Amino acid sequence: MNAKAKAIVLFGHGARDVRWREPFDRLASLWKAQHPNVLVELAFLELMQPSLEEAIGSHITAGAMEVVVVPVFFGQGGHLRNDFPVLLSACREKFPNIQLSATPAVGEDEVVLQAIIEFSARAL
Amino acid sequence: MNAKAKAIVLFGHGARDVRWREPFDRLASLWKAQHPNVLVELAFLELMQPSLEEAIGSHITAGAMEVVVVPVFFGQGGHLRNDFPVLLSACREKFPNIQLSATPAVGEDEVVLQAIIEFSARAL
Repeated sequence: MNAKAKAIVLFGHGARDVRWREPFDRLASLWKAQHPNVLVELAFLELMQPSLEEAIGSHITAGAMEVVVVPVFFGQGGHLRNDFPVLLSACREKFPNIQLSATPAVGEDEVVLQAIIEFSARAL
Repeated sequence: MNAKAKAIVLFGHGARDVRWREPFDRLASLWKAQHPNVLVELAFLELMQPSLEEAIGSHITAGAMEVVVVPVFFGQGGHLRNDFPVLLSACREKFPNIQLSATPAVGEDEVVLQAIIEFSARAL
C-alpha cells in the first residue's frame, strides 16, 4: 500500500446471535469484490468482535494512513450520538498518526432508503 | 379501499432518542409518495410507538384485508428470530380475518446491501 492508503470500517451494533452478522459479512465481501484496492474491516459496538479500536489497529498494521468509519445503523440515536463519538475520540488518541473520519449512519442516505422502499414494494 | 386492500408495516427496533426514528419517518414518507394506493404504518419492537399490533389494527380500521410486515433490521438475530414470530402469532390470533405475512429483514436484500456499499464508496 502507498503512504496515503485509505481503509474503511463498516461499524455495526453487534448481537448475541452470531447469525445476526451475516449481512455484515456479505457487506465486507461485496466491498472486497468491488473495491479490492481499499481495505475493509468490520467492527462492532458490543457483543461481537472486533471492536472499533481493534479494526482500526488492523488497518494501521496493514499500512493504512486514513480510515473512514461507516456506521451501519438505520437511525442516529444514543449509540451514534453518545457512544460512538467517545469511541472515535479514544481511537484518535490511541492512533494520532492516522486520519480518522466517520460518515453519517447509512440509514440517513436517500439511496439506501430507496432500496428499502423497493424491497418492500417487491413483497406486495 | 376495496375488499382485498393490501397494507404495509415498516417494523423497526425503536430507541430512546426520538431522533433515531427520523429515517423511519422518511421511509414512510417515501412510501406514501411512491405508493399512494398502499397504506403504510410504522411500528416498533420496543421503546417507540405504535406497537406492531397497534399498527396492524390501524390498517384494519382503514379497511386492509392483507398486511405485509417488513422488518427494517440489518441482521436476523434474536429480535427477529425469537421476539418477532411471537408478536406475529399474537397478531394473527387477534386479527384472524386478515392475511398477515412478513418479509425477511431488509438487510438480507442484495439491493439494500449494494446501496450501503455505494454510500460507503462515496465517503472515500
